[in-house]
Amino acid sequence: MDDLEEFRRYRERMNKRILASGNLGIKRFFALDSRAYEKGALDTKMKELMGLVASTVLRCNDCITYHVVRCVQEGVSDEELFEALNVALVVGGSITIPHIRRAADVLDQCRENRKNKNPSSFKEPIQPH
Amino acid sequence: MDDLEEFRRYRERMNKRILASGNLGIKRFFALDSRAYEKGALDTKMKELMGLVASTVLRCNDCITYHVVRCVQEGVSDEELFEALNVALVVGGSITIPHIRRAADVLDQCRENRKNKNPSSFKEPIQPH
Amino acid sequence: MDDLEEFRRYRERMNKRILASGNLGIKRFFALDSRAYEKGALDTKMKELMGLVASTVLRCNDCITYHVVRCVQEGVSDEELFEALNVALVVGGSITIPHIRRAADVLDQCRENRKNKNPSSFKEPIQPH
Amino acid sequence: MDDLEEFRRYRERMNKRILASGNLGIKRFFALDSRAYEKGALDTKMKELMGLVASTVLRCNDCITYHVVRCVQEGVSDEELFEALNVALVVGGSITIPHIRRAADVLDQCRENRKNKNPSSFKEPIQPH
Amino acid sequence: MDDLEEFRRYRERMNKRILASGNLGIKRFFALDSRAYEKGALDTKMKELMGLVASTVLRCNDCITYHVVRCVQEGVSDEELFEALNVALVVGGSITIPHIRRAADVLDQCRENRKNKNPSSFKEPIQPH
Amino acid sequence: MDDLEEFRRYRERMNKRILASGNLGIKRFFALDSRAYEKGALDTKMKELMGLVASTVLRCNDCITYHVVRCVQEGVSDEELFEALNVALVVGGSITIPHIRRAADVLDQCRENRKNKNPSSFKEPIQPH
Repeated sequence: MDDLEEFRRYRERMNKRILASGNLGIKRFFALDSRAYEKGALDTKMKELMGLVASTVLRCNDCITYHVVRCVQEGVSDEELFEALNVALVVGGSITIPHIRRAADVLDQCRENRKNKNPSSFKEPIQPH
Repeated sequence: MDDLEEFRRYRERMNKRILASGNLGIKRFFALDSRAYEKGALDTKMKELMGLVASTVLRCNDCITYHVVRCVQEGVSDEELFEALNVALVVGGSITIPHIRRAADVLDQCRENRKNKNPSSFKEPIQPH
Repeated sequence: MDDLEEFRRYRERMNKRILASGNLGIKRFFALDSRAYEKGALDTKMKELMGLVASTVLRCNDCITYHVVRCVQEGVSDEELFEALNVALVVGGSITIPHIRRAADVLDQCRENRKNKNPSSFKEPIQPH
Repeated sequence: MDDLEEFRRYRERMNKRILASGNLGIKRFFALDSRAYEKGALDTKMKELMGLVASTVLRCNDCITYHVVRCVQEGVSDEELFEALNVALVVGGSITIPHIRRAADVLDQCRENRKNKNPSSFKEPIQPH
Repeated sequence: MDDLEEFRRYRERMNKRILASGNLGIKRFFALDSRAYEKGALDTKMKELMGLVASTVLRCNDCITYHVVRCVQEGVSDEELFEALNVALVVGGSITIPHIRRAADVLDQCRENRKNKNPSSFKEPIQPH
Repeated sequence: MDDLEEFRRYRERMNKRILASGNLGIKRFFALDSRAYEKGALDTKMKELMGLVASTVLRCNDCITYHVVRCVQEGVSDEELFEALNVALVVGGSITIPHIRRAADVLDQCRENRKNKNPSSFKEPIQPH
């Protein structure tokens, strides 16, 4: 089980547990969260890149991991991804560098999984963040 | 030794080391920190829930862990805890979701420890954050 | 027209304009935001104090203004309000001090309005943040 | 002189003064900042929307003002702008709402300026943030 | 009455009002805050520059205003001040630029006051942040 | 291989991989980052302490680790380091305490490495953050 698969399983297990708490506000927020990245006037690819930039300037590794996986699924090229990360780096400063390392690390794991036809890399992360 | 116990030991050891540095400002800050949650016009339970909300919107897992442990010690119900986390989620956005997962995880560990009469779960975390 | 009344009018006008954009996600978020402070396992007074603490550590004057007005409407005493602000100050540090000044300023305006039976102070701020 | 024009003049005057300090690091940072939004694998329109999302989750009104002006110059539609703001709102939470009000306000001023052929609205803001 | 003098008066009036609330925690925090910048192993000048860097990366204009005034009182040169601001800019990114404009603006007001022997510029801001 | 050495190797490997992406903006930012701490009107020791304070109030453990290592290399005494951390603690609040624990932990590892003449402790961390 690779690093990304472990992250995905923990996230799914805990998200189910949170939803099982019966708190309606949290449940609705999770639904809103998923819908924010659906195609509208802007396509999903651009919204996922925006989610990545937002996660990087706010410096959240779990959110960065999720959005890099989603960007790869949406066909974002390496060049596009690093341009988005550069916008985040300039806006957010050197304090984001450890998170840009994380983004590059996840990108390489995603590319490797695809090359090896690792089945986990083809599963959609259907849960919100 | 469970996850929470390891966290508690590391925190206590390092807090002692920091206080041993002889820096008077830090020592006094630690004292102020402890006192802020003592019963006054508001009771400790409410202040610990406030500390949890503040730690969640500021996205600090160590602080979340501490305040969830304290909330359970103060008799906060699961329903109350998730309502507080919902306030934090709405104020702080999806970027707080990984930290809400952490809070739910710590809550489950605390409940499990109590059920198993695990002695560590009854020790007061007397050191500040 | 006092300072608080001007803030309330601008906020209501712009919130209407945002909702008029037709973006469904934003509309639903505004609804979730209002509901998060409704009475549940925790009462509205405590949730508004939590909203104030979260707004103070995140250092947002508009949000602080809103929650102080709501706290006064919910019958929070000065002593309770300053204890909540003290939790925020200890968690968030001296960087929150300018916002604690804002909270105290709004508190005094609310008390003054009530004393003078200023009608604006009795209107519910029904729009979310 | 409208609100946006006053903002632009202050910004330009102070940016000149900062560059006149002779600090080479700041000068180079300003150059990097401008270049980050130039067309590459991603076009300028998308990068400006990313800059807007980043500025909104980091809650900086001056940066939001700048990027909304630039988005309008790049032909972003109202629907696209509010979808980007919705991503920022979901990621960053209700604490971003006052800044979404600012974004909508600037958007309306830009549209008004264009309708009135206000010359100031056609000037490029050539200075970085 | 200049801009800095107005800021100082509002701050002093509101700090007195906050201390008059009788909250002991806040009172002690204000004392700790003042003491943190007193000469120890590091001199006050260096600590004020550190306070300026911290205030800039956390993007608080009131705190920046205070620390720039204090830096000028401690004899910081323009070159030193801009080098400190450059560290803050690199660490905190372009989102700090509006605050670096504020710092430069306050610096110029302080230098102008000194040149004009404006008495207000010689008063110590004795209240914490 | 100790904890600091592992951190250093991961950082260097990922920084190389990021630079290999060919993104010119990121490359130039890394260069600016290194230069910001070079001796100018302020010496490197003071700039590294400023970097530590900025990293602590922004709560980034990787950046704290880097700057503590650099501070020790520049001859910062324990007393000076804890005074800088106290400034960060007062400005940034109790939410920084977990990061002050990290700083103290790294400091002790650095001192231990020097005592044991551990070669890794003498290598310069030449890569930016």
